[in-house]
Amino acid sequence: MAVRFELIKECRRSKARLGRLHTPHGTIETPVFMPVGTQATVKGMMPEELKEMGTEIILSNTYHLYLRPGEDLINEAGGLHKFMNWDRPILTDSGGFQVFSLGPLRKVSEDGVTFKSHLDGSTHFMSPERATQIQMALGADIIMAFDECAPYPSTWEYTEAALQRTTQWAARCKEAHGREDQALFGIVQGGMYKDLRERSAKELMDIGFPGYGIGGLSVGEPKPLMYEMLEYTIPLLPTDKPRYLMGVGSPDCLIEGVMRGVDMFDCVLPTRIARNGTVMTSRGKLVIRNAENTRDFRPLDEECSCYACRNYTRAYIRHLFKAEEILGLRLTTIHNLYFLLTLMKKVRQAIAEDRLPEFRKEFFADYGYE
Amino acid sequence: MAVRFELIKECRRSKARLGRLHTPHGTIETPVFMPVGTQATVKGMMPEELKEMGTEIILSNTYHLYLRPGEDLINEAGGLHKFMNWDRPILTDSGGFQVFSLGPLRKVSEDGVTFKSHLDGSTHFMSPERATQIQMALGADIIMAFDECAPYPSTWEYTEAALQRTTQWAARCKEAHGREDQALFGIVQGGMYKDLRERSAKELMDIGFPGYGIGGLSVGEPKPLMYEMLEYTIPLLPTDKPRYLMGVGSPDCLIEGVMRGVDMFDCVLPTRIARNGTVMTSRGKLVIRNAENTRDFRPLDEECSCYACRNYTRAYIRHLFKAEEILGLRLTTIHNLYFLLTLMKKVRQAIAEDRLPEFRKEFFADYGYE
Repeated sequence: MAVRFELIKECRRSKARLGRLHTPHGTIETPVFMPVGTQATVKGMMPEELKEMGTEIILSNTYHLYLRPGEDLINEAGGLHKFMNWDRPILTDSGGFQVFSLGPLRKVSEDGVTFKSHLDGSTHFMSPERATQIQMALGADIIMAFDECAPYPSTWEYTEAALQRTTQWAARCKEAHGREDQALFGIVQGGMYKDLRERSAKELMDIGFPGYGIGGLSVGEPKPLMYEMLEYTIPLLPTDKPRYLMGVGSPDCLIEGVMRGVDMFDCVLPTRIARNGTVMTSRGKLVIRNAENTRDFRPLDEECSCYACRNYTRAYIRHLFKAEEILGLRLTTIHNLYFLLTLMKKVRQAIAEDRLPEFRKEFFADYGYE
Repeated sequence: MAVRFELIKECRRSKARLGRLHTPHGTIETPVFMPVGTQATVKGMMPEELKEMGTEIILSNTYHLYLRPGEDLINEAGGLHKFMNWDRPILTDSGGFQVFSLGPLRKVSEDGVTFKSHLDGSTHFMSPERATQIQMALGADIIMAFDECAPYPSTWEYTEAALQRTTQWAARCKEAHGREDQALFGIVQGGMYKDLRERSAKELMDIGFPGYGIGGLSVGEPKPLMYEMLEYTIPLLPTDKPRYLMGVGSPDCLIEGVMRGVDMFDCVLPTRIARNGTVMTSRGKLVIRNAENTRDFRPLDEECSCYACRNYTRAYIRHLFKAEEILGLRLTTIHNLYFLLTLMKKVRQAIAEDRLPEFRKEFFADYGYE
């Protein structure tokens, strides 16, 4: 079964859309937030817990799985879904972002990238063909083209060179790809330069993909600049294909992204800050270790009905963090993921009811605008 | 509602017994193994997971909870059950074992023990009265008398002095105790000296308790010596009261303890070795990090039907441990606790069917005798 995107509704008062992404492992309602399971597990979570909180699709990282335990082992296990006991859709990134983040540890040529493993310093070579083969072996429902994400800030010249490689590599990925049950998405680059964003979008559309990632944003630039680039880039993309804003996951960026036409998001933010003891609530962020929570017998968020908020107090969760008990980060992770997944559910409902701008206003009145 | 022990059956071919321990939070089938939740959480586990694997009662540590977050806070939260979201029975130890384990950090007098906190070095005083008050504030179903556990080896003279204090303190604990919904158990000491064991048992029975802990065993002595002490001590205790062998939890010691008349056990062993990647299986111990498990797509134990064994392979769990992912220790903890709780269920069934000696033989034929 092939991956297929179904556009359900376009908002009249924003660029927001409702859609359904059909995959071999089930249908995803968009706009969607994808929790990140870098090493074939969403840190601290079990598949059943992810499902209970409404997770429809997760992201896993090709770079990490390639290095450990290796795509061959996962393939031998029956693929990533079976290996990690997750029977809903999975998206794997291409490893490009991680490899280029290695800085002096990597060397780029037209052919691909030579890099040293962050685990043991061993030398590896990654190319569009290898990245695609690895992702085929992993067997996710959606895979990504191997791209070069220019850091922020970058000169026009550097960004242009990265874009050019990204286009050429995207074509090679498509050429190398041969699984009917997987969709390969291209990734629009072009940094903070509108002319390059336009060129990237057009070149990728010429090659033709069933979905488009928007890369190179949320890399350190001011949020208004990110929104500006989104506003410029998204209308260049086909309306009948999903648009995936990569690496974005704060509540404000999710809402602002949806309003500009984004269908898919992923980010480590909710799980990472949870392990650090920070939770997102309807009244903004809460740092659970703070002394003010010592005898606070309210739930993390009085308006939340996640497992953690239904059963535990701030005082108990603070105790767990002070005592370095694992249950603490399990509860905050459950809460933060539930918070974002529920936010997206409310966003979808608001689009359906033509009241997304009002929802946005109400949400930020309580949460605060970051 | 008071705590009450009901003796169901005595084995004809060993000293094993079947019983029911009725508590305000439910009835426990004995012989029972109690998982340890030192800091108001069984490390890595949620209450629902513990219930799913058949946990009937857990133990929590008074010393740790007194130091952090403090019994007042837990009492304010509505007691330990409510604080940690565990609605089944709880047993708290008295803190005696921990305080005496502090070595040079503590000073003993007739009145009690002055010690320094392992957390911040602050000075504290613990007495039979304080230990009882703290446990009353925590609100467990079963609480333990504040005792002195002599280390192994100890001279007869030292062991005798510790025993004498333990008896006097037990009387003071009983005097200080005033909750009808809690049972206070005495603790038999006497080290490896039969005359002292006998004296301790008799003195405690003169005071009179609804249950008796057997302390000062599994403290480093050879297992045959522990079994010998059990064989001597247990017949001295009343048959209509539960006997609790403290700090014991390896499969062989559980079976041997039951055969000598023990009704209750607790130990950190299954959860501690699980976090280290060692699991107990029907074929003995398995170290999951070992290279031989790299491509082993079998469950941890082919005869086990715990959540981990139903859904995950050795290869995946090994990957989780190599990648330092929390789900790894969650799965091994679930498995080890399930293994011991299921072992105890089988032991109870074997007693009911008068075939405990046969069960013991079969179990060790596969598991190996440690």
